[in-house]
Amino acid sequence: MEPIQGIKQAIRTIPDFPKEGIQFKDITPLLQDAHFFDQSIELLASKLKGKSVDYIAGIESRGFIFGAALALKLGCGFVPIRKPGKLPYKTYSQSYDLEYGTDTIEIHQDAFKPGSTVCLIDDLLATGGTAAAAVKLIERCDVELDSILFLIELTFLEGRAKLAGQTVESLIAF
Amino acid sequence: MEPIQGIKQAIRTIPDFPKEGIQFKDITPLLQDAHFFDQSIELLASKLKGKSVDYIAGIESRGFIFGAALALKLGCGFVPIRKPGKLPYKTYSQSYDLEYGTDTIEIHQDAFKPGSTVCLIDDLLATGGTAAAAVKLIERCDVELDSILFLIELTFLEGRAKLAGQTVESLIAF
Repeated sequence: MEPIQGIKQAIRTIPDFPKEGIQFKDITPLLQDAHFFDQSIELLASKLKGKSVDYIAGIESRGFIFGAALALKLGCGFVPIRKPGKLPYKTYSQSYDLEYGTDTIEIHQDAFKPGSTVCLIDDLLATGGTAAAAVKLIERCDVELDSILFLIELTFLEGRAKLAGQTVESLIAF
Repeated sequence: MEPIQGIKQAIRTIPDFPKEGIQFKDITPLLQDAHFFDQSIELLASKLKGKSVDYIAGIESRGFIFGAALALKLGCGFVPIRKPGKLPYKTYSQSYDLEYGTDTIEIHQDAFKPGSTVCLIDDLLATGGTAAAAVKLIERCDVELDSILFLIELTFLEGRAKLAGQTVESLIAF
Protein backbone atom coordinates (compact mmCIF):
# COMPACT_ATOMS: atom_id res chain seq x y z
CA MET A 1 0.00 0.00 0.00
CA GLU A 2 1.23 3.51 -0.80
CA PRO A 3 2.06 5.58 2.33
CA ILE A 4 -0.60 8.09 1.37
CA GLN A 5 -3.29 5.38 1.33
CA GLY A 6 -2.39 4.30 4.86
CA ILE A 7 -2.54 7.89 6.07
CA LYS A 8 -5.89 8.42 4.38
CA GLN A 9 -7.32 5.29 5.98
CA ALA A 10 -6.11 6.49 9.39
CA ILE A 11 -8.38 9.55 9.11
CA ARG A 12 -11.75 8.83 10.67
CA THR A 13 -15.00 10.38 9.49
CA ILE A 14 -17.37 11.42 12.29
CA PRO A 15 -20.89 12.11 11.00
CA ASP A 16 -22.82 15.18 12.16
CA PHE A 17 -19.93 16.88 13.99
CA PRO A 18 -19.83 19.68 15.04
CA LYS A 19 -23.38 19.89 13.67
CA GLU A 20 -25.84 17.87 11.63
CA GLY A 21 -24.86 17.25 8.04
CA ILE A 22 -21.10 17.78 8.52
CA GLN A 23 -18.83 14.79 7.88
CA PHE A 24 -15.95 15.72 10.20
CA LYS A 25 -12.47 14.46 9.30
CA ASP A 26 -10.88 13.31 12.56
CA ILE A 27 -7.09 13.22 12.33
CA THR A 28 -6.49 11.91 15.86
CA PRO A 29 -6.13 8.23 14.79
CA LEU A 30 -3.43 9.38 12.35
CA LEU A 31 -1.59 11.44 14.99
CA GLN A 32 -1.62 8.67 17.57
CA ASP A 33 0.02 6.25 15.11
CA ALA A 34 3.75 7.09 15.22
CA HIS A 35 4.35 5.57 11.79
CA PHE A 36 1.58 7.46 10.00
CA PHE A 37 2.38 10.71 11.80
CA ASP A 38 6.03 10.43 10.75
CA GLN A 39 5.05 9.58 7.17
CA SER A 40 2.66 12.53 6.94
CA ILE A 41 5.42 14.93 8.02
CA GLU A 42 7.81 13.25 5.57
CA LEU A 43 5.31 13.73 2.73
CA LEU A 44 4.64 17.36 3.68
CA ALA A 45 8.40 17.97 3.77
CA SER A 46 8.72 16.46 0.29
CA LYS A 47 6.46 19.23 -1.03
CA LEU A 48 9.21 21.73 -0.09
CA LYS A 49 12.10 19.67 -1.46
CA GLY A 50 14.75 21.81 -3.12
CA LYS A 51 13.22 25.01 -1.78
CA SER A 52 14.79 27.27 0.79
CA VAL A 53 12.16 28.05 3.41
CA ASP A 54 13.05 29.93 6.61
CA TYR A 55 9.80 29.63 8.55
CA ILE A 56 6.78 27.39 8.85
CA ALA A 57 3.72 29.37 9.93
CA GLY A 58 0.95 27.23 11.46
CA ILE A 59 -2.67 28.17 12.12
CA GLU A 60 -4.08 27.50 15.62
CA SER A 61 -4.72 24.83 16.79
CA ARG A 62 -4.27 21.78 14.55
CA GLY A 63 -1.92 23.67 12.26
CA PHE A 64 0.42 23.85 15.26
CA ILE A 65 0.73 20.06 15.29
CA PHE A 66 1.82 19.68 11.67
CA GLY A 67 3.61 23.03 11.52
CA ALA A 68 5.83 22.48 14.55
CA ALA A 69 6.77 18.95 13.49
CA LEU A 70 7.49 20.12 9.94
CA ALA A 71 9.59 23.04 11.20
CA LEU A 72 11.66 20.64 13.31
CA LYS A 73 12.04 18.25 10.39
CA LEU A 74 13.22 20.98 8.00
CA GLY A 75 15.27 23.03 10.46
CA CYS A 76 12.96 26.05 10.12
CA GLY A 77 11.62 28.46 12.70
CA PHE A 78 7.97 28.05 13.68
CA VAL A 79 5.52 30.97 13.74
CA PRO A 80 2.08 30.59 15.33
CA ILE A 81 -0.94 32.33 13.81
CA ARG A 82 -3.40 32.56 16.68
CA LYS A 83 -6.93 33.34 17.75
CA PRO A 84 -7.50 36.90 19.00
CA GLY A 85 -5.99 37.99 22.30
CA LYS A 86 -3.53 35.10 22.56
CA LEU A 87 -0.35 36.70 21.19
CA PRO A 88 1.11 39.04 23.80
CA TYR A 89 3.20 41.43 21.66
CA LYS A 90 2.21 43.84 18.84
CA THR A 91 0.01 42.02 16.32
CA TYR A 92 -1.60 42.32 12.91
CA SER A 93 -5.23 41.16 12.89
CA GLN A 94 -7.34 39.86 10.04
CA SER A 95 -11.05 39.09 10.12
CA TYR A 96 -12.82 36.75 7.74
CA ASP A 97 -16.38 35.64 7.10
CA LEU A 98 -17.89 32.47 8.48
CA GLU A 99 -21.21 30.94 7.49
CA TYR A 100 -22.72 33.02 10.31
CA GLY A 101 -20.66 35.96 11.57
CA THR A 102 -16.92 36.53 11.38
CA ASP A 103 -13.75 35.27 12.98
CA THR A 104 -10.31 36.81 13.47
CA ILE A 105 -6.72 35.57 13.51
CA GLU A 106 -3.53 37.37 14.51
CA ILE A 107 0.21 37.26 13.95
CA HIS A 108 3.05 39.02 15.76
CA GLN A 109 4.35 41.98 13.81
CA ASP A 110 7.90 40.76 14.45
CA ALA A 111 7.13 37.13 13.60
CA PHE A 112 9.64 36.93 10.72
CA LYS A 113 12.94 38.47 9.71
CA PRO A 114 12.10 40.83 6.81
CA GLY A 115 12.91 39.34 3.40
CA SER A 116 12.68 35.74 4.51
CA THR A 117 10.67 32.92 2.93
CA VAL A 118 7.63 31.38 4.58
CA CYS A 119 5.48 28.28 4.15
CA LEU A 120 1.97 28.37 5.62
CA ILE A 121 0.40 25.16 6.90
CA ASP A 122 -2.92 23.97 8.28
CA ASP A 123 -4.44 20.55 8.68
CA LEU A 124 -7.51 21.13 6.50
CA LEU A 125 -8.48 23.20 3.46
CA ALA A 126 -12.26 23.59 3.56
CA THR A 127 -13.76 26.86 2.27
CA GLY A 128 -10.36 28.56 2.47
CA GLY A 129 -11.47 31.52 4.57
CA THR A 130 -8.99 31.01 7.39
CA ALA A 131 -6.08 30.33 5.05
CA ALA A 132 -6.89 33.39 2.93
CA ALA A 133 -6.87 35.53 6.10
CA ALA A 134 -3.54 33.99 7.10
CA VAL A 135 -2.11 34.85 3.67
CA LYS A 136 -3.12 38.49 4.22
CA LEU A 137 -1.39 38.51 7.60
CA ILE A 138 1.81 37.06 6.16
CA GLU A 139 1.74 39.55 3.27
CA ARG A 140 1.82 42.41 5.78
CA CYS A 141 5.08 41.07 7.23
CA ASP A 142 7.45 41.91 4.35
CA VAL A 143 8.30 38.28 3.55
CA GLU A 144 7.83 35.95 0.59
CA LEU A 145 5.07 33.34 0.92
CA ASP A 146 6.45 30.30 -0.89
CA SER A 147 3.49 27.96 -0.61
CA ILE A 148 0.53 26.79 1.45
CA LEU A 149 0.35 23.16 2.58
CA PHE A 150 -2.60 21.18 3.88
CA LEU A 151 -2.83 17.63 5.07
CA ILE A 152 -6.42 17.33 3.84
CA GLU A 153 -8.35 19.15 1.13
CA LEU A 154 -12.14 18.97 0.86
CA THR A 155 -12.22 19.59 -2.88
CA PHE A 156 -16.00 20.01 -3.15
CA LEU A 157 -15.76 23.19 -1.04
CA GLU A 158 -13.43 24.77 -3.63
CA GLY A 159 -11.21 26.48 -1.07
CA ARG A 160 -8.44 26.96 -3.65
CA ALA A 161 -10.56 29.66 -5.28
CA LYS A 162 -9.90 31.89 -2.25
CA LEU A 163 -6.14 31.24 -2.55
CA ALA A 164 -5.75 32.21 -6.22
CA GLY A 165 -2.20 33.19 -7.15
CA GLN A 166 -0.69 31.05 -4.39
CA THR A 167 1.06 27.69 -4.62
CA VAL A 168 -1.31 25.33 -2.82
CA GLU A 169 -0.53 21.69 -2.06
CA SER A 170 -2.47 19.05 -0.14
CA LEU A 171 -1.61 15.43 0.66
CA ILE A 172 -5.08 13.95 0.72
CA ALA A 173 -8.29 14.92 -1.07
CA PHE A 174 -11.82 14.00 -0.04
CA MET B 1 27.02 29.73 26.49
CA GLU B 2 25.09 26.63 27.53
CA PRO B 3 22.18 25.78 25.17
CA ILE B 4 19.72 26.27 28.00
CA GLN B 5 20.94 29.83 28.58
CA GLY B 6 20.35 30.72 24.92
CA ILE B 7 16.86 29.27 25.04
CA LYS B 8 16.10 31.15 28.24
CA GLN B 9 17.26 34.43 26.74
CA ALA B 10 15.05 33.81 23.68
CA ILE B 11 11.96 33.88 25.92
CA ARG B 12 10.55 37.39 26.10
CA THR B 13 8.76 38.79 29.14
CA ILE B 14 5.71 40.92 28.30
CA PRO B 15 4.53 42.97 31.29
CA ASP B 16 0.84 43.20 32.19
CA PHE B 17 -0.38 40.52 29.76
CA PRO B 18 -3.07 39.25 29.66
CA LYS B 19 -3.84 41.53 32.61
CA GLU B 20 -2.11 43.96 34.93
CA GLY B 21 0.51 42.49 37.18
CA ILE B 22 1.20 39.37 35.07
CA GLN B 23 4.70 39.01 33.61
CA PHE B 24 3.84 36.88 30.55
CA LYS B 25 6.53 34.54 29.21
CA ASP B 26 6.38 34.86 25.41
CA ILE B 27 7.92 31.83 23.70
CA THR B 28 7.43 33.08 20.13
CA PRO B 29 11.00 34.44 19.77
CA LEU B 30 12.27 30.99 20.77
CA LEU B 31 9.98 29.20 18.30
CA GLN B 32 10.89 31.44 15.39
CA ASP B 33 14.59 30.73 15.89
CA ALA B 34 15.22 27.37 14.18
CA HIS B 35 18.33 26.71 16.27
CA PHE B 36 16.73 27.38 19.66
CA PHE B 37 13.56 25.50 18.71
CA ASP B 38 15.59 22.47 17.70
CA GLN B 39 17.69 22.68 20.87
CA SER B 40 14.62 22.92 23.08
CA ILE B 41 13.17 19.75 21.54
CA GLU B 42 16.55 18.05 21.88
CA LEU B 43 16.69 18.95 25.58
CA LEU B 44 13.11 17.80 26.18
CA ALA B 45 13.92 14.52 24.42
CA SER B 46 16.96 14.07 26.67
CA LYS B 47 14.61 13.99 29.68
CA LEU B 48 13.13 10.75 28.28
CA LYS B 49 16.46 9.15 27.38
CA GLY B 50 16.55 5.43 28.04
CA LYS B 51 12.80 5.30 28.63
CA SER B 52 10.30 3.59 26.40
CA VAL B 53 7.45 6.03 25.77
CA ASP B 54 4.69 5.23 23.27
CA TYR B 55 2.80 8.53 23.20
CA ILE B 56 3.36 12.22 23.79
CA ALA B 57 0.17 13.90 24.99
CA GLY B 58 0.12 17.68 24.49
CA ILE B 59 -2.25 20.23 26.02
CA GLU B 60 -3.96 22.71 23.66
CA SER B 61 -2.64 25.00 22.24
CA ARG B 62 1.04 25.63 22.97
CA GLY B 63 1.52 22.10 24.23
CA PHE B 64 0.73 21.01 20.67
CA ILE B 65 3.82 22.80 19.39
CA PHE B 66 6.30 21.10 21.71
CA GLY B 67 4.36 17.85 21.91
CA ALA B 68 4.10 17.25 18.17
CA ALA B 69 7.75 18.10 17.55
CA LEU B 70 8.85 15.87 20.45
CA ALA B 71 6.65 13.00 19.21
CA LEU B 72 8.24 13.26 15.77
CA LYS B 73 11.72 13.40 17.28
CA LEU B 74 11.17 10.31 19.44
CA GLY B 75 9.05 8.30 17.00
CA CYS B 76 6.01 8.40 19.30
CA GLY B 77 2.35 8.93 18.54
CA PHE B 78 0.88 12.30 19.43
CA VAL B 79 -2.34 12.71 21.44
CA PRO B 80 -4.06 16.10 21.74
CA ILE B 81 -5.77 17.12 24.97
CA ARG B 82 -8.24 19.77 23.91
CA LYS B 83 -10.65 22.45 25.00
CA PRO B 84 -14.30 21.35 25.29
CA GLY B 85 -16.25 20.53 22.14
CA LYS B 86 -13.21 20.21 19.88
CA LEU B 87 -12.66 16.44 19.89
CA PRO B 88 -15.28 14.76 17.72
CA TYR B 89 -15.36 11.22 19.12
CA LYS B 90 -16.23 9.90 22.63
CA THR B 91 -14.32 11.88 25.24
CA TYR B 92 -13.47 12.01 28.92
CA SER B 93 -13.83 15.51 30.40
CA GLN B 94 -12.15 17.05 33.41
CA SER B 95 -12.90 20.43 34.95
CA TYR B 96 -10.49 22.40 37.11
CA ASP B 97 -10.57 25.62 39.09
CA LEU B 98 -9.28 28.92 37.79
CA GLU B 99 -8.78 32.10 39.81
CA TYR B 100 -12.34 32.99 38.83
CA GLY B 101 -14.56 30.14 37.63
CA THR B 102 -13.59 26.82 36.10
CA ASP B 103 -12.26 25.44 32.84
CA THR B 104 -12.48 22.02 31.20
CA ILE B 105 -10.24 19.85 29.03
CA GLU B 106 -11.02 16.65 27.14
CA ILE B 107 -9.32 13.58 25.72
CA HIS B 108 -10.59 10.92 23.34
CA GLN B 109 -11.51 7.72 25.15
CA ASP B 110 -9.60 5.74 22.51
CA ALA B 111 -6.57 8.07 22.54
CA PHE B 112 -4.11 5.36 23.60
CA LYS B 113 -3.65 1.63 23.23
CA PRO B 114 -4.38 0.19 26.71
CA GLY B 115 -1.23 -0.64 28.67
CA SER B 116 1.01 1.81 26.83
CA THR B 117 3.29 4.46 28.32
CA VAL B 118 2.61 8.17 28.02
CA CYS B 119 4.53 11.40 28.54
CA LEU B 120 2.47 14.56 29.10
CA ILE B 121 3.82 17.90 27.90
CA ASP B 122 2.89 21.57 28.06
CA ASP B 123 4.86 24.74 27.51
CA LEU B 124 4.39 26.23 30.98
CA LEU B 125 3.90 25.00 34.54
CA ALA B 126 2.19 27.80 36.45
CA THR B 127 -0.30 26.88 39.20
CA GLY B 128 -0.52 23.33 37.82
CA GLY B 129 -4.31 23.22 37.53
CA THR B 130 -4.41 22.34 33.84
CA ALA B 131 -1.66 19.73 34.11
CA ALA B 132 -3.34 18.11 37.14
CA ALA B 133 -6.59 17.86 35.16
CA ALA B 134 -4.67 16.34 32.23
CA VAL B 135 -3.16 13.75 34.59
CA LYS B 136 -6.67 12.76 35.71
CA LEU B 137 -7.74 12.35 32.07
CA ILE B 138 -4.74 10.17 31.25
CA GLU B 139 -5.31 8.05 34.38
CA ARG B 140 -8.79 7.19 33.09
CA CYS B 141 -7.27 5.74 29.90
CA ASP B 142 -5.67 2.58 31.36
CA VAL B 143 -2.09 3.64 30.52
CA GLU B 144 1.04 4.41 32.51
CA LEU B 145 1.98 8.08 32.84
CA ASP B 146 5.77 8.09 32.78
CA SER B 147 6.41 11.78 33.34
CA ILE B 148 5.27 15.35 32.78
CA LEU B 149 7.52 17.76 30.89
CA PHE B 150 7.40 21.54 30.71
CA LEU B 151 9.54 23.98 28.82
CA ILE B 152 9.11 26.63 31.53
CA GLU B 153 8.31 26.41 35.22
CA LEU B 154 7.22 29.42 37.27
CA THR B 155 8.57 28.07 40.54
CA PHE B 156 7.02 30.78 42.76
CA LEU B 157 3.54 29.46 41.83
CA GLU B 158 4.41 26.03 43.26
CA GLY B 159 2.58 24.08 40.55
CA ARG B 160 4.45 20.89 41.43
CA ALA B 161 2.36 20.64 44.60
CA LYS B 162 -0.66 19.80 42.44
CA LEU B 163 1.34 17.08 40.64
CA ALA B 164 2.52 15.20 43.73
CA GLY B 165 3.47 11.59 43.02
CA GLN B 166 4.33 12.33 39.39
CA THR B 167 7.74 12.68 37.75
CA VAL B 168 7.87 16.36 36.75
CA GLU B 169 10.67 17.92 34.69
CA SER B 170 11.12 21.42 33.32
CA LEU B 171 13.89 22.92 31.20
CA ILE B 172 13.80 26.49 32.43
CA ALA B 173 12.77 27.97 35.77
CA PHE B 174 11.74 31.57 36.42
